[in-house]
Parts: sequence; C-alpha cells; structure tokens
Amino acid sequence: MGTGPGTIEEMTQRARKVIESCEVVAGYSLYIDLIRPLLNGKKIISTGMTGEAKRCNAAINEALDGKAVCVISGGDAGVYGMAGLVLELAAQHPGLDVEIVAGVTAACSTAAALGAPLTHDFAAISLSDRLTDWETITKRLVSAAHADFVIALYNPASKARREHLNKACKIILLYRSPQTPCGIARNVGRDGELCKIMNLSELAFFDADMFTTAIVGNSATKVLNGRLVTPRGYVF
Amino acid sequence: MGTGPGTIEEMTQRARKVIESCEVVAGYSLYIDLIRPLLNGKKIISTGMTGEAKRCNAAINEALDGKAVCVISGGDAGVYGMAGLVLELAAQHPGLDVEIVAGVTAACSTAAALGAPLTHDFAAISLSDRLTDWETITKRLVSAAHADFVIALYNPASKARREHLNKACKIILLYRSPQTPCGIARNVGRDGELCKIMNLSELAFFDADMFTTAIVGNSATKVLNGRLVTPRGYVF
Repeated sequence: MGTGPGTIEEMTQRARKVIESCEVVAGYSLYIDLIRPLLNGKKIISTGMTGEAKRCNAAINEALDGKAVCVISGGDAGVYGMAGLVLELAAQHPGLDVEIVAGVTAACSTAAALGAPLTHDFAAISLSDRLTDWETITKRLVSAAHADFVIALYNPASKARREHLNKACKIILLYRSPQTPCGIARNVGRDGELCKIMNLSELAFFDADMFTTAIVGNSATKVLNGRLVTPRGYVF
Repeated sequence: MGTGPGTIEEMTQRARKVIESCEVVAGYSLYIDLIRPLLNGKKIISTGMTGEAKRCNAAINEALDGKAVCVISGGDAGVYGMAGLVLELAAQHPGLDVEIVAGVTAACSTAAALGAPLTHDFAAISLSDRLTDWETITKRLVSAAHADFVIALYNPASKARREHLNKACKIILLYRSPQTPCGIARNVGRDGELCKIMNLSELAFFDADMFTTAIVGNSATKVLNGRLVTPRGYVF
C-alpha cells in the first residue's frame, strides 16, 4: 500500500482505513515514522533501506499465521515500491489474498509542489543502478528526451551515487536546451520540504539526495508566475 | 485538485479537507457526481467534457470575487487534468493564490487493480489527438516501446476515436511480442469496474472507452497468480 508523499494527510482515506484495520505493519523505518500516530498497539516490522525482501517475507509469514498485515511504501506502492516484490513472494503461497492500495506517487506530488509540469505525456525513470544497469537507464533517458517526454527522475542520487543526476542531465542536454525549465522537490509534505525551479544546466549540478525527485520539462514547458507548467494545448 | 480514481474513499484526506473548505466547486459533471456527498450547500460549476476553459474561467472569476474555489479533476489534477489550464489562466491575475492538490492518477489506480505492472520505469501516453497531433503520439509510442518502458495508455478511445488503441498496439507490436502481458481497467473504484489481463495482440482489439486505462507490459512483465507484475529485480 502507498502512503503518499508525506504525512498521514496525504494518504487516501482507503489507505488509512486499511492500515487501521491491520494488526501488523511492515515498512522502511522512515515511512513507518511518518505514520506512527496510526500504529498504536500494532506489531511493526521495520528494516533499513536494503532489507526489502527480508521485510516482505516477514510480513508474508505473519499473513500466513492468519494476521491482517500491510506492507507500506512511501508514495505509491506500485511505482518503485513494494507491491511487485510482495506479489512475487506471495505467488509462492497461492491461497494468500493480496490487495494493492495505490497512493500519490512522487512524480505527482513533486509536480503539484512545482505547478503542473506533467499535464501531458511523461516518462518516469529511476537513476538508481542498484537493480538496473546504467546502460538500460541511459537508453531510456535518450528515448524519453528524444521523444519530448517530460521526465520525472526518481532516486536521482544517494550517498553512494552523487554523480548520477549530473550524468543523466548531460544525456538529456544532447536533445534539449540548457534553458529547459526543470524543478526539484525534496521531502514533499514533510519537515524540510524544499521546492526549486531551475533550468536544465543548473539541475545538472544540483546536489540531490534520496528524498529528492526531479522533473525535466519538455519543449513546451514554461515558468508562469513562479510555477512550472506544461500547457496541454487548450485554447482560451 | 485531483479526486483520485473513484469514490470519495480514494481521495487523499488533504483533498477532502480542501473541498470541504471551499464555497465553490467546479468540475466535469461525472467527477462532480462522484463527490456529490461532499458538496451540500456549495455552488457548483459543472460543464461537459469539452468546456474546460469556460469552466476554469468561471472558477477563476469566483475566486476573484473573493470566494474559496476548487477545480476538481478525476485522478490527479496534474496528469491530463485541469492544473495546467488553471495555472495558465490564473497567470493573468498575479495576485490570485493557486494551490495544486495531487491525487492518485489512473496509471497508478489501474496498476493497483491489475497487480504491480509499473514497479519500474514507465511512460504515460494519451491516445487522444484532440490537443496533440497523431505524429507526436506515434513518436512517443515508438520511443517508449523501443526503450522497453512499461506504457500506460490514457484516453485509449472515445466515441469519435474507436481505432486509436488498435493503431497504438500495432506500433508497439513492431517492438514487442504479441504475447506481451497487458491489462486494462475501466471505472476503477466506481460502479461498473472491470479489470482484465490479456496479451498485446488481444489488447489491439479490445473495445476500450474513455473510462478505460490500458497498461502494456515490457520485456520483464509477467502474469503471476492472475496478477500483472513487472519485477523490479530484487533477489530473494
């Protein structure tokens, strides 16, 4: 289940009800902390960033014991979240009933914080090469840039990968002007929220972290009254 | 603001509070009807599908009169929704304060209904050529198919455009196997909900309507226990 970008307010009402109805909640410690007020009296399975399979397996074991369990992801569980892994692991136990509850993914919460840059076709690309080779990431950046998609960049950097956002922007710069309007949002809906509009050449040198999502505009994107907007083409 | 895929339950709590705090609510009549229980005593500005600019202008005029107004979109207001148009129109009135409230977009609600097909990089493409020429749509389909993106197809058909989904699938079939797992969802979270997993050659002949969203898997997408899943690559 996806808990949205930030606090409990950003979660759907359905997601909140599902969490309230569960006896066990599993998730990365940061996302557990963000929904702590809902977790009184529940068993919590919390592991660090790279313990995904262990955490999901522990959750499935609780479910096999007959407990109502939910595995939470920040944003939307289905977009770079835990939904796929849970379904893969649960497939080994055909009787297990798994429901996926959607949330607001970072592309959408970042877009809303910056204005309306995604109003038209867009591509979501993760810059993490932990589970994907950089060659595939490069191919997708090239294709998305070439076809004039607005691009939402997930996981633009981590402590171990400081240079990926710079490398990605250099690839996109082969197809787009350095003046292309872009933006970043960090910690949307949480303490330390930061939103910043900048151009593509500035984005290449922005010091992103793992709580940042970046949006690269396309040929139609512009800055209007301090907001990033990709017009859909309505005549008015 | 985005109201999510279906009923009030699928809206974020923040979106609900914002609607409740507004005196005027503007939106396409279908989406107004879905949130009718929240609208008691409010002024409603409702127009048909093609009255977008008129509806947003009427909403802005109410805001200029000092009213608290919200313009609603189904799904996420920022993805093929009204957020861009509202910001464009509001830019002519620099004093006007506009807040964008995100929702769960159809790619995410459709993915959750089908399983977890979007867990990795994906592209969102609208097949409506009302505001975009078909040449641009084709270019994006080709690029997304070539770079092995999972593809979420918005607006796959309307009464006037019955053949667009077929044309789009034929383009994707140049790059992907006819057996590629795909799925559609119609009226997610609403009366008449339909979810169906099929392969790409079947999707080409599916009779979609404007309430349908289709998802085309990539080379890694598979069907597991009746759910559509794109593994992210976790080892377990």
